[in-house]
Amino acid sequence: METNLQQTVGYGEDEFCNEARDLIKTYLQKDSAIHFVSGGTQANLIVISSILKPHESVIAVESGHIAVHETGAIEATGHKVNTVPTTDGKITLEEIQNILTLHTDEHMVKPKLVYISNSTEVGSVYTKAELTVIYDFCQENNLYLFVDGARLGSALTSSKCDLTLEDLANLTDIFYIGGTKNGALIGEAIIINNSKLNEDFRYHIKQKGGMLAKGRLIGIQFAEMFKNDLFFEMGKHANAMAKKLAEGIAGEGYNFLTVPSSNQIFPILFNYEIERLQEHFDFFIWQKMDEEKSAIRLVTSWATPEEQVDHFLKQL
Amino acid sequence: METNLQQTVGYGEDEFCNEARDLIKTYLQKDSAIHFVSGGTQANLIVISSILKPHESVIAVESGHIAVHETGAIEATGHKVNTVPTTDGKITLEEIQNILTLHTDEHMVKPKLVYISNSTEVGSVYTKAELTVIYDFCQENNLYLFVDGARLGSALTSSKCDLTLEDLANLTDIFYIGGTKNGALIGEAIIINNSKLNEDFRYHIKQKGGMLAKGRLIGIQFAEMFKNDLFFEMGKHANAMAKKLAEGIAGEGYNFLTVPSSNQIFPILFNYEIERLQEHFDFFIWQKMDEEKSAIRLVTSWATPEEQVDHFLKQL
Amino acid sequence: METNLQQTVGYGEDEFCNEARDLIKTYLQKDSAIHFVSGGTQANLIVISSILKPHESVIAVESGHIAVHETGAIEATGHKVNTVPTTDGKITLEEIQNILTLHTDEHMVKPKLVYISNSTEVGSVYTKAELTVIYDFCQENNLYLFVDGARLGSALTSSKCDLTLEDLANLTDIFYIGGTKNGALIGEAIIINNSKLNEDFRYHIKQKGGMLAKGRLIGIQFAEMFKNDLFFEMGKHANAMAKKLAEGIAGEGYNFLTVPSSNQIFPILFNYEIERLQEHFDFFIWQKMDEEKSAIRLVTSWATPEEQVDHFLKQL
Amino acid sequence: METNLQQTVGYGEDEFCNEARDLIKTYLQKDSAIHFVSGGTQANLIVISSILKPHESVIAVESGHIAVHETGAIEATGHKVNTVPTTDGKITLEEIQNILTLHTDEHMVKPKLVYISNSTEVGSVYTKAELTVIYDFCQENNLYLFVDGARLGSALTSSKCDLTLEDLANLTDIFYIGGTKNGALIGEAIIINNSKLNEDFRYHIKQKGGMLAKGRLIGIQFAEMFKNDLFFEMGKHANAMAKKLAEGIAGEGYNFLTVPSSNQIFPILFNYEIERLQEHFDFFIWQKMDEEKSAIRLVTSWATPEEQVDHFLKQL
Repeated sequence: METNLQQTVGYGEDEFCNEARDLIKTYLQKDSAIHFVSGGTQANLIVISSILKPHESVIAVESGHIAVHETGAIEATGHKVNTVPTTDGKITLEEIQNILTLHTDEHMVKPKLVYISNSTEVGSVYTKAELTVIYDFCQENNLYLFVDGARLGSALTSSKCDLTLEDLANLTDIFYIGGTKNGALIGEAIIINNSKLNEDFRYHIKQKGGMLAKGRLIGIQFAEMFKNDLFFEMGKHANAMAKKLAEGIAGEGYNFLTVPSSNQIFPILFNYEIERLQEHFDFFIWQKMDEEKSAIRLVTSWATPEEQVDHFLKQL
Repeated sequence: METNLQQTVGYGEDEFCNEARDLIKTYLQKDSAIHFVSGGTQANLIVISSILKPHESVIAVESGHIAVHETGAIEATGHKVNTVPTTDGKITLEEIQNILTLHTDEHMVKPKLVYISNSTEVGSVYTKAELTVIYDFCQENNLYLFVDGARLGSALTSSKCDLTLEDLANLTDIFYIGGTKNGALIGEAIIINNSKLNEDFRYHIKQKGGMLAKGRLIGIQFAEMFKNDLFFEMGKHANAMAKKLAEGIAGEGYNFLTVPSSNQIFPILFNYEIERLQEHFDFFIWQKMDEEKSAIRLVTSWATPEEQVDHFLKQL
Repeated sequence: METNLQQTVGYGEDEFCNEARDLIKTYLQKDSAIHFVSGGTQANLIVISSILKPHESVIAVESGHIAVHETGAIEATGHKVNTVPTTDGKITLEEIQNILTLHTDEHMVKPKLVYISNSTEVGSVYTKAELTVIYDFCQENNLYLFVDGARLGSALTSSKCDLTLEDLANLTDIFYIGGTKNGALIGEAIIINNSKLNEDFRYHIKQKGGMLAKGRLIGIQFAEMFKNDLFFEMGKHANAMAKKLAEGIAGEGYNFLTVPSSNQIFPILFNYEIERLQEHFDFFIWQKMDEEKSAIRLVTSWATPEEQVDHFLKQL
Repeated sequence: METNLQQTVGYGEDEFCNEARDLIKTYLQKDSAIHFVSGGTQANLIVISSILKPHESVIAVESGHIAVHETGAIEATGHKVNTVPTTDGKITLEEIQNILTLHTDEHMVKPKLVYISNSTEVGSVYTKAELTVIYDFCQENNLYLFVDGARLGSALTSSKCDLTLEDLANLTDIFYIGGTKNGALIGEAIIINNSKLNEDFRYHIKQKGGMLAKGRLIGIQFAEMFKNDLFFEMGKHANAMAKKLAEGIAGEGYNFLTVPSSNQIFPILFNYEIERLQEHFDFFIWQKMDEEKSAIRLVTSWATPEEQVDHFLKQL
């Protein structure tokens, strides 16, 4: 065309988005549908509300992001989140089964989707064996499996996690790859492996306000991240810094709330130590353990300099 | 702080967003609350669902963006859009009054909010006198007034529009300044002039998936646009190109669906001409006028080169 | 069981409901699923929200009950009602097609269900030929057809309507038989002919608050109505009274907004006559026709005594 | 009026409803607003969705009716139910405070309403002292208090409960009196003591399908129940039968899940006993206690004959 007098802006179907799609598919080894949205809450609410019928619910651990930290975004689309207890942030078959056993008739919601995060809210990761068992259970019980990958970059490069993107393509119905928490300015890539769930998906993105006119903004970043394994390099660096931090803290004799596995670690410190450290460092107090001790959350990223880790360990 | 071990990312409260807020307020001459979100549909659905109670509705013209081109985003938050007829894309007091007259008891929704766009979907603009009349009517009838400013840059720099941002601050309860359609990569700035409507507003942004972790992405762009009147320069260029295009087309004897006023114009051409032009140019056919003629939509932008306009006029 | 220590109350699966189901099925000549709910708005919102996915919409005439007189009940479940103009309260294929033609991509809702009422809000009725054409169109265009039968008793006994319940079972995906407006104290019977739409339907009834613990209350009434054709007798009486009223009014030289066909008629009177009649009778002014005349709505029922009709005609 | 040609049916504003309102108010000793709806789930979803803004949540015990047995009705209106643990079905200030302590910013919902049931799902009752403490806490913390009174008849006539309807009028913002579970065929009476919550309440009833055209059906029953203390007589009989049952069971040496207090009791029996009893009686198994024992739920009503109680005790 000689002249564009349409203010066409792509809406996520531009060449950059398509390049990013092709690059990601080389990792998936599968022709999954790929959609880009701007953030994690948006990805979660679009995915879940597009899948469930009004009376169907999603199962998540009680510390799950959708259960606590999204201002009721899932409920705002009309759906209950059935929460189950967890000690390490991961879900177990037994807990999923408990929910199914309880929900037997029309006086209760009908659980239809299992939501897990990898890595989880408390830094733990799922192995391939664990994900396989969960996916098989979902298949047998007519449940969909959705993996929130806001922190997938850190999970996939964790020494405790043997999963690949190809595994995720084969062991989930749908998942997303988080850009925002792994170095991108903006953007998450939703990967739909179960083609049935892709039907009219763009309508759901648009309706929920997730369709960027200039979607290339996200496409460019994902293309960049998956061109030279940058996505994994960023995850690795974050993990390496977290590992050094964890080993240093453990070396001083401290315990952890969960086994350090990814870029979030949760050392348990005396409250007076925490107060002292807070004068120098920014971090969250995650959980009170007893009258004297609390677990804190330390998060590293692709941008954490090694000197900051050293500095923290020195102050400890 | 010496070290940040929190992955703090601002969520729209960073220095860039604050700089953009300060710059915009110099135009508003009012201490309105300012929130940044990524797109127009998102702005509309967050604003409207945050204001209305479940049984309340929003009034819009039948061609309004929320009424047609947002995949039912407003209804998805639970609210009816009461539409009224329009000939030029603008709403009239008479039509608002008709809706109020009809909706008298609890068997019908309760209209509570008037939604207008400036410029409208068909390129027309509201004058200060017109907006004043509408705002006064809303005040008298206990209605809120919300202006969708996706194309506000083009409206405010139109020769047919005498409004300023300061006027909008005084003559609306809430409005937004569109970045995406006026040169920004992403982002709309929601301006809340009625402080009652600002209560807990960030909860609504978060719940609807509109809170960007790295909100500075939008802040930087708005700071840039309002530092050197760039926002207005971009609107002016788009309008100048549209004006040249419209004058050229009128010079050939063609009529228009609506009086050319901003960066969208709607010439009425014979269908065979349209077919011929489509071989060379990208544009939408907006509306069939009769068996022989249709109105097409031509949109210019801050980036439209004058040569393209000349080229179109030559081909006509 | 010797003792019931469960406070079991049936929830619509008691013997009275089942008897009513069996009786209705003898009219349907089809093994449709039948569910009882308490009122028309409830029937409409449960049916429509159970069928549609979040981005899908329902098409109705602009005077449709769901479009005007249900306080946004459908929108409150998240769905847009696409309205089309009508002169006689009935929908036309042309208008349905216009909606389909307009809604072509993910920037707009996806129409999926056609909603009509029989009799309509303005007293008109659909013939078998008309319903057949609409149903065939829906089948061809992958749309569901739902008939609101709040006033079905009057429609099916109208001399202008040749439809039977068996026809409705064959020419709709789902419809309901109104009890409340046809002599029952409470209750509507939802008839699901397309078995796909019956999946988990009781979950939807329960979730929307429509499942009566003591559902037999409705079952008893429907059993009574369909035991001895009482349902049709009641409709016939209402129609006969409306017919007498209409003929008397026509005999005085008055015109009507719509052709009198069922138990609602809409004579057009001079405003001074209306004022005089209002001193003696309760009725609604439906629509202003011009400066001097308005259409009023007169409704008869199974309980309207013939003397009241005579009395009205005498006063005219 | 000489003739009604309107099919006017009252919609809950008829003389029977008004008589019932007047009678109930003599017990409340307060000019509260009173609305009638058909069932408990409907009452809960209308009340809660009418009060909360989109980002606000309701706090309930994990066994609460809205949390488990209403098919996600509250979530379907867009709101999260924050659940807290309970041992006896009652909520504690400590647990409410825990929820408030956790929910501090816009990344989480904003708790705004406390929901309790009296009697609870496990048959326990609140005393006046307990309700006073909860209401005071709510007042201090800017929370509304809503009491689900589906089983209020049994609670108010329990020997363990010293509350009156007048107390409920003074110690709640809103509550409802259950008819369906206390002898009525249908109907719950919603009592709004906080007049702010009554604004536009009929719109919410209508929108959610809860407005019965012939609302007198419910009005008549409530008028009957409150004319001669019948409401309380029915509760007393149910409680007396439950008490006799509980004493008989306790006499045989069995324990209970919760202290028998109202018309629901939960004896703990050996599984082989339960199996034997199930051959003769209808009841639910409520909860597995260990490998050998389970708690069962026995419910009495206004209609339970004393012989049935004797018969059960004989079989035990």
